[in-house]
Amino acid sequence: MLQLIGFDGDDTLWHSEGYYREANDAFARIIGQYVDLDDVHQQMLATERRNLKLFGYGAKGMTLSMVETAIAVTAQRISAADIHRLVALGKAVLQHPVELLPGIREAVEAVAQHHRVVLITKGDLFHQEQKVASSGLAGLFQRIEIISEKDAASYRRVLTEFNLQPAQFAMVGNSLRSDIEPVLRLGGWGVHVPYHLTWAHELEHGLGDDEPHLITVDTPSAIAAAVAQLRVRSSL
Amino acid sequence: MLQLIGFDGDDTLWHSEGYYREANDAFARIIGQYVDLDDVHQQMLATERRNLKLFGYGAKGMTLSMVETAIAVTAQRISAADIHRLVALGKAVLQHPVELLPGIREAVEAVAQHHRVVLITKGDLFHQEQKVASSGLAGLFQRIEIISEKDAASYRRVLTEFNLQPAQFAMVGNSLRSDIEPVLRLGGWGVHVPYHLTWAHELEHGLGDDEPHLITVDTPSAIAAAVAQLRVRSSL
Repeated sequence: MLQLIGFDGDDTLWHSEGYYREANDAFARIIGQYVDLDDVHQQMLATERRNLKLFGYGAKGMTLSMVETAIAVTAQRISAADIHRLVALGKAVLQHPVELLPGIREAVEAVAQHHRVVLITKGDLFHQEQKVASSGLAGLFQRIEIISEKDAASYRRVLTEFNLQPAQFAMVGNSLRSDIEPVLRLGGWGVHVPYHLTWAHELEHGLGDDEPHLITVDTPSAIAAAVAQLRVRSSL
Repeated sequence: MLQLIGFDGDDTLWHSEGYYREANDAFARIIGQYVDLDDVHQQMLATERRNLKLFGYGAKGMTLSMVETAIAVTAQRISAADIHRLVALGKAVLQHPVELLPGIREAVEAVAQHHRVVLITKGDLFHQEQKVASSGLAGLFQRIEIISEKDAASYRRVLTEFNLQPAQFAMVGNSLRSDIEPVLRLGGWGVHVPYHLTWAHELEHGLGDDEPHLITVDTPSAIAAAVAQLRVRSSL
């Protein structure tokens, strides 16, 4: 039966992707002063993906990828002043206010009445720690796991620390790729809470339309009921 | 009595600071094409310190600080091509080979015969994970803790997870500031293994000349004996 519920951080507990979008749009405007490019976002995404294995996720890696992309697409014509603006965009992402999604505190509290809850978030350790601290939610979680990649191996490691089987674990999050698919593959459960913005990289996943271990809800206020439903299913 | 021994990673298990030095020296040479500066390293250190609260430790933050410093000290005259070289310097640091210090594997193995051992390293989560994996040492440690800052609060958190008092813990590392001082302040023990290079930021600490909870050794092969000595002291 379901024992442990993991919550994702970015775009599940608090807003995040919007700040990255703003930075990427400002980046495109700066680049637009040099070259007329339709696919500047694609170029940026390609650089980010190439750099993922070196930088991992997060705003610092994004900023370095912006600088690289800018230099490449402008054929080295971009000015130092504009590169400085790119660095400032990255710093702004690192400093964005932490705004909780409406109803999420109540959702975590409701789930915590019947289950142990952990926060499992990926990305830059330092930035994620600061967001967790600013969120005011840290005290609700038994444990906070900041991991570099949300793959099956990482979830398995967390479950080993809790001495649990995958079937005793459900993950709540906005990313099918990072929060749901690897957990379902292991034999666990998922509550998908789509966010209105998703980074292109996170859109790719291999889930089907009908996954019996998955419930999709459209608002945080529906999370606790979905977990309760999975709890019933998991005990059958 | 001593139960748990923590080992630092960078410059304790494997070489690290030399790669940062190389990058900083190459940075100074690039800047030297624009301005005649005696204190370029000081300028860089000042930028890094200012950015620490936003970037945390690690090579990505260093690279962004290099870009910022370069733009500032050249009064925006630095070319995009040279800024690209700075990004490449940062990438080289992220890709440096992981070379163990001579005798360190044997030292960890010897300590592990009598104590539980954990790896406690700070910096960029993604880069540190890669170094741990490449080192071939991961299997020796009960647990690997990658933390954003090595302060008293972080060590206290690790000890809470192990259900131990500070007096039952010793830390082995090259940095008096990060590995030794906070542990001694809590009431724990330390084995200092100086490395021949130390980042200026890590040189500042508040330890005295005579700390009864601290033993300094000059080579990894002396670590196990030092831990044994602390074990005796801790049981008196």
